[in-house]
Amino acid sequence: MLIHEMTKDECRIALESVSIGTMACARDGQPYVVPTYFSYDGNHIYGVSMLGQKIEWMRANPLVCLQIWDRKNHYQWLSVVVSGRYEELISSREFESERVHAHALLQKRAMWWQPGLVATEHRAGLMPIYYRMHIVGITGRRAMPDKVEAAALVTE
Amino acid sequence: MLIHEMTKDECRIALESVSIGTMACARDGQPYVVPTYFSYDGNHIYGVSMLGQKIEWMRANPLVCLQIWDRKNHYQWLSVVVSGRYEELISSREFESERVHAHALLQKRAMWWQPGLVATEHRAGLMPIYYRMHIVGITGRRAMPDKVEAAALVTE
Repeated sequence: MLIHEMTKDECRIALESVSIGTMACARDGQPYVVPTYFSYDGNHIYGVSMLGQKIEWMRANPLVCLQIWDRKNHYQWLSVVVSGRYEELISSREFESERVHAHALLQKRAMWWQPGLVATEHRAGLMPIYYRMHIVGITGRRAMPDKVEAAALVTE
Repeated sequence: MLIHEMTKDECRIALESVSIGTMACARDGQPYVVPTYFSYDGNHIYGVSMLGQKIEWMRANPLVCLQIWDRKNHYQWLSVVVSGRYEELISSREFESERVHAHALLQKRAMWWQPGLVATEHRAGLMPIYYRMHIVGITGRRAMPDKVEAAALVTE
């Protein structure tokens, strides 16, 4: 397996092609990470969620990290890590156009809203919270099979 | 889709059946999250890695969070989040038996070492670092299809 650093453009293309990642936030030095559906418009990362630990922690400390992992097989995958800042698109006139934009982006994926918004025992009746992530840094790594591994994959 | 909280025992069974997760650490309030291979022996979570940002940050702040996501389809998945404390199994007599234990656990998976240890441009020649995570808290959620969704899955 050969692992290479990805360029910023390669990272952005990967972010546009994937809609599931893991979002990490932190409070008092303790990180917390959960799976998250998102959409990337080339500038910001958008998401939606019900109120819960993730939103509460991101409100308290807006420094966040999103990671995607697109894995074809053991030898062929890419991982992109995005660090940035959480901003809530609160339900006000100021953020109205951004909320519409976020909704339009997110609904391109069928059933995008379900994992984040479906009611559980603890959050029935709450309103969805839209947010965006301002990107501060992006890094990525891509793994590819070496010649021997590639030959083994072909014959599998 | 119906989402339920998992019991601690259900979370532990899930951790034993999965070997890939995402590990989050944090420094100065900034979280960082990367994919990680691990093994769980019922008490601790074990991993191995080359020196890099993850190890450097976990050394500086041992509070970490591991998340696994076992996804069969859109309606059927489970997510387990483990918070805990990083401990490095340094290459000394004190940790020798723990290092042997970690190695034995991790090598149960074929090619377990590759993503963490394969050399890249920036880390050739470094020694592998074994570590364990002391578990402080475990929570999990399991999604299942409702009757309509289950029927749709059968006919797909």
